[in-house]
Amino acid sequence: MADRPAVEESWTDQGVVHTARSPHCRLRDVPLGAVKLEDGFWASRLRANREAGLPRLLALLEEHGVADNFRRLSGRSEAPRRGLLWTDSDLYKWMEAAAFTLATTDDAPLWRDLTALVVDVAAAQGDDGYVNTWFVDERAGQRFQDLPAAHELYCAGHLIQAAIAHFRATGERTLLSVAENFADYLAETFGPGEREGYGGHPEVEMAMVELYRTTGNSAYLDFTRFMLEQQGFARKEALAGHAVRAGYLCAGAADYYAETGDAQILAALERLWSDLASGKLYITGGVGSRHAGEAFGLPYELPNARAYAETCAAIASIFWNWRMLALDGEARFADVLETTLYNGFLSGVSLSATEYFYVNPLESAGGHRRVEWYDCTCCPTNVVRMLASVPGYLFSTSAEGLWVHLYENCQLEWRVPPLVRMVSDAGQAPGPAPPDVPVRVDVQTGYPWTGDVELTVRPDTRHSFSLYLRIPEWCPGAATRVNRGRKRTHRRGGSYVEIRREWENGDTVRLELEMPVVAVEANPAVRENRGCVALRRGPLVYCFESVDNQGFDLRDLELLLGSKGSSYGFHFRTARDLLGGVVVLRGQGLAPAPRLDRGPLYRPRGPKPRRALQERTVTAIPYYAWANRGPSEMLVWPRVGKARP
Amino acid sequence: MADRPAVEESWTDQGVVHTARSPHCRLRDVPLGAVKLEDGFWASRLRANREAGLPRLLALLEEHGVADNFRRLSGRSEAPRRGLLWTDSDLYKWMEAAAFTLATTDDAPLWRDLTALVVDVAAAQGDDGYVNTWFVDERAGQRFQDLPAAHELYCAGHLIQAAIAHFRATGERTLLSVAENFADYLAETFGPGEREGYGGHPEVEMAMVELYRTTGNSAYLDFTRFMLEQQGFARKEALAGHAVRAGYLCAGAADYYAETGDAQILAALERLWSDLASGKLYITGGVGSRHAGEAFGLPYELPNARAYAETCAAIASIFWNWRMLALDGEARFADVLETTLYNGFLSGVSLSATEYFYVNPLESAGGHRRVEWYDCTCCPTNVVRMLASVPGYLFSTSAEGLWVHLYENCQLEWRVPPLVRMVSDAGQAPGPAPPDVPVRVDVQTGYPWTGDVELTVRPDTRHSFSLYLRIPEWCPGAATRVNRGRKRTHRRGGSYVEIRREWENGDTVRLELEMPVVAVEANPAVRENRGCVALRRGPLVYCFESVDNQGFDLRDLELLLGSKGSSYGFHFRTARDLLGGVVVLRGQGLAPAPRLDRGPLYRPRGPKPRRALQERTVTAIPYYAWANRGPSEMLVWPRVGKARP
Repeated sequence: MADRPAVEESWTDQGVVHTARSPHCRLRDVPLGAVKLEDGFWASRLRANREAGLPRLLALLEEHGVADNFRRLSGRSEAPRRGLLWTDSDLYKWMEAAAFTLATTDDAPLWRDLTALVVDVAAAQGDDGYVNTWFVDERAGQRFQDLPAAHELYCAGHLIQAAIAHFRATGERTLLSVAENFADYLAETFGPGEREGYGGHPEVEMAMVELYRTTGNSAYLDFTRFMLEQQGFARKEALAGHAVRAGYLCAGAADYYAETGDAQILAALERLWSDLASGKLYITGGVGSRHAGEAFGLPYELPNARAYAETCAAIASIFWNWRMLALDGEARFADVLETTLYNGFLSGVSLSATEYFYVNPLESAGGHRRVEWYDCTCCPTNVVRMLASVPGYLFSTSAEGLWVHLYENCQLEWRVPPLVRMVSDAGQAPGPAPPDVPVRVDVQTGYPWTGDVELTVRPDTRHSFSLYLRIPEWCPGAATRVNRGRKRTHRRGGSYVEIRREWENGDTVRLELEMPVVAVEANPAVRENRGCVALRRGPLVYCFESVDNQGFDLRDLELLLGSKGSSYGFHFRTARDLLGGVVVLRGQGLAPAPRLDRGPLYRPRGPKPRRALQERTVTAIPYYAWANRGPSEMLVWPRVGKARP
Repeated sequence: MADRPAVEESWTDQGVVHTARSPHCRLRDVPLGAVKLEDGFWASRLRANREAGLPRLLALLEEHGVADNFRRLSGRSEAPRRGLLWTDSDLYKWMEAAAFTLATTDDAPLWRDLTALVVDVAAAQGDDGYVNTWFVDERAGQRFQDLPAAHELYCAGHLIQAAIAHFRATGERTLLSVAENFADYLAETFGPGEREGYGGHPEVEMAMVELYRTTGNSAYLDFTRFMLEQQGFARKEALAGHAVRAGYLCAGAADYYAETGDAQILAALERLWSDLASGKLYITGGVGSRHAGEAFGLPYELPNARAYAETCAAIASIFWNWRMLALDGEARFADVLETTLYNGFLSGVSLSATEYFYVNPLESAGGHRRVEWYDCTCCPTNVVRMLASVPGYLFSTSAEGLWVHLYENCQLEWRVPPLVRMVSDAGQAPGPAPPDVPVRVDVQTGYPWTGDVELTVRPDTRHSFSLYLRIPEWCPGAATRVNRGRKRTHRRGGSYVEIRREWENGDTVRLELEMPVVAVEANPAVRENRGCVALRRGPLVYCFESVDNQGFDLRDLELLLGSKGSSYGFHFRTARDLLGGVVVLRGQGLAPAPRLDRGPLYRPRGPKPRRALQERTVTAIPYYAWANRGPSEMLVWPRVGKARP
């Protein structure tokens, strides 16, 4: 494939994923720097990530020798190589997180730390472009000898992603050049008639497409094509095996499709996504239910206490869904992304931003705790980069206008293209496209705690375009109102409402998303959840923690549900001082008092033993916020009790 | 500890476990050779094991180089060492199985094969007594360097067990001498102030106690004490980690207690057994629910489709429960043993006796199949030895008389001690015990298909002793009748009925065990099984296979249950031509027609979608017999439906 023309967009114009010229993408990312979070749900999380999470994690990476592994190759450290063979990727992910952070915030100490690491990494690169701190010295001969296990291509992918983020945050090309050198080496080494095979842990696939997008060098796109072919991606029928690997691979394949329009790749992506959504997705967005192999289970194999649901797998799913969403703006992908981001991903980090979950169960007897560090610390380093990049996931643009995916208190300062002019009947091509028009959008909302959103649109000049507002799938009814105009109602969740008009400075759009408490049932094929419900309100899945519900074993709780119209008998209450400020849900349940003697494991079916059940007021908190108040039992899916006559 | 006097009993008098002089055992094993199986449930399985299973497995062991690994050490083979590092144990287990078989059957080819292997193993022993085909040549220096992973002590244990079985079957001491040499080496190497640590996979613990029982050499008992101390056995609170390892360790600890009466060991055994029985035991007797680590889960963590329930773990549980039973004749241990033997163990082998399960799920979408061989072939070799030893598990003796644990068509020719004479009030010790009296017992029964058992007792001379007949825990009512005497009823399952009398040749005892179909519920803490039942009749757990229940997905089946008094609406029918002859269960259920479109994974709770349910006659087969008729869905725990008004 021929290189495409040199990239036109400035580094300041490129988002998390740079699809502005991807021929099979409808949506384009908005650069991180264009979004300014204001006080709200995500701003406080990103602040904690910047102020506490990133510095602490860097200190731990240093303490465990992860950066010294690079320094020893340039003689700046004499320490022996330490850690598992993929620790390089941990440093790269931290660097990517720092770069995303610097794209939205001035932070001189962070800039200095990151710059120093860029120098360390650059100094560790071999003359041939190869960079890896494991396959050196006595292991130099093992380079590319064990692709399934060695994580070499995986580390390379993370280097490339960090370099791209660094470039897009700073305009600085040092690390990007390191990445290009390594990528050139990979592209020369692998290919038809050259070295065959593929890395056991995908990641490099999406990194190489992104490097193609950044540089225009089609050798990188060819590399990903070869990797996808080697893995038989187009023939895959179902998600199986390691969930992070599968998710990264699908994200890379979606990137590849966006550039090439390969119909077989798209068909495989659609098959795999249906497989995910129809039976392999936790209500939290968690994926990969099996501990053994960190793997996908069979359809409907979604155990709660034994959920694996690795934090990295949630992140991989966000990557994949974001790329699918970009193809054609289909809301189903945004729905999975949102659920995952607010629940199965966000549970992976403490409110303090310094402790992490690798595994995200939906039920716990109290023993499951976050920690600062894992010897395989993939999840913590993935969390900090995902959090830092959140501003990049709120908006997109397309030829038609501006898309709002997630609602958050923020200010967008960006550009919107003019409405696309269609080719005339006479077949005349349109003239050169007129330039994009600068637009500022102020978003005021209490989301995810309330469903009210006010957007103020401020184009530099009067400007016609469409504003696409997402009506989430969980929303039973929504209304929009432009300025003082008529309120329009929208009953279809899982869609985007298009508001097309000529906008002028100060136009406001009010969006009201109904946000009742919903008791969700799982498909009866999910065995563990039969007779149970999970509570959800807006994008948030709720759970019960024993710290809020004392005196009984949560597993014995039976909810007393009201009608759907009455929010199933649950009401919500804002608790500003709880868990950094949350909305809790309150309702009634039955539970035995005192705790049960559980009785025999098996017995002939017959009249149930009498149990003294007490009616109790029960309190649910957002799932993401659990395990922040000491050891506590936790349950997402309580049983539904029969109301007593 | 001082050696105890040389073993008095002839090799022909020693059972699977030789507890005749264990001071803290009430029960003594009956030697395999004393039990002659007649046509019945087990005879056909043992015949298939001898005629098909053992020869085929030996051929596969040879094909995979497992025996050549020994021969190369004596120059009889030039092949390089092959297979995983614990393959020695696989050969030893096959040899133990062959020895058990030869204890009950003349089989000249089997005798020749076994004898040749004895020579091969003996020739591989080093001058210092060490035998292991892995830690030789360039790995000789690694001996005992990696106790957690190396399986050296595990292999040693299996060598010792094979040697003991060979000695007890043939009176031949070649392999026993090899085992003693190795055991002496181990006893000298390990101990306080010597080499510390313990093998990562217990097994040697029970083997060394058994060797102590066989030889009287107390160094072997001391070795096991040291191993138990090193593992902190007396402090263990709950079963955790690898289920086979835990089961073997408990069996070894029970052996150790039987010899020493160490109260802390007994207390730990009781704690662990309660932990097993109260929450970690599948209804099939399967244990170890987690794939990850082949491990025990938390209490009530008993998934069905994802059950691990390794065949070896069922065997380990049988070993452990048999040793616990021997301590004091408590029926609860025999109940677990029986359930495991007829279900969770026996499912591990095909009716052809040549294909095996490693994993024994309680639900399958059809993909789970037995195979001839695993690279880690621990389960197949364990199955053949367990099957071959079954005659040793039917009876025991005690000072009071004869115990019958499992009912099977057979003839016992053995000896029963005279009733023990108590020390007189004057404190006079009794004189030397009078010799045991030869007794033959003929057992006629259709067990496990019927609950009628007739025992004919034939002492050589009139003789007073107690006959203990087991009333299984599953039995709601039993009756016994001696000769033409009055029928006595027994309402307490999970006990032994004692019949004490002076027996004369030809006395008959009729035992009638009620054997209704029972719909068993699991404790509601077992999440997956809420609202479900499993069918059981007698010792057999039943399952549904789609080959017998076509046109719907088994997971959608809802049973229509009758009352407990009506066998829950299920009736049984003998199917002589099915699966080698089984009793099937028939009843009614509801199932959708045709198969469901499963609908969304999650939805707000509300009125159920209408489904067209058809009433159907459904058929259940014994769980052990599933997966013998090609791929088929399988389900042990169907849901209970509401009868339609």
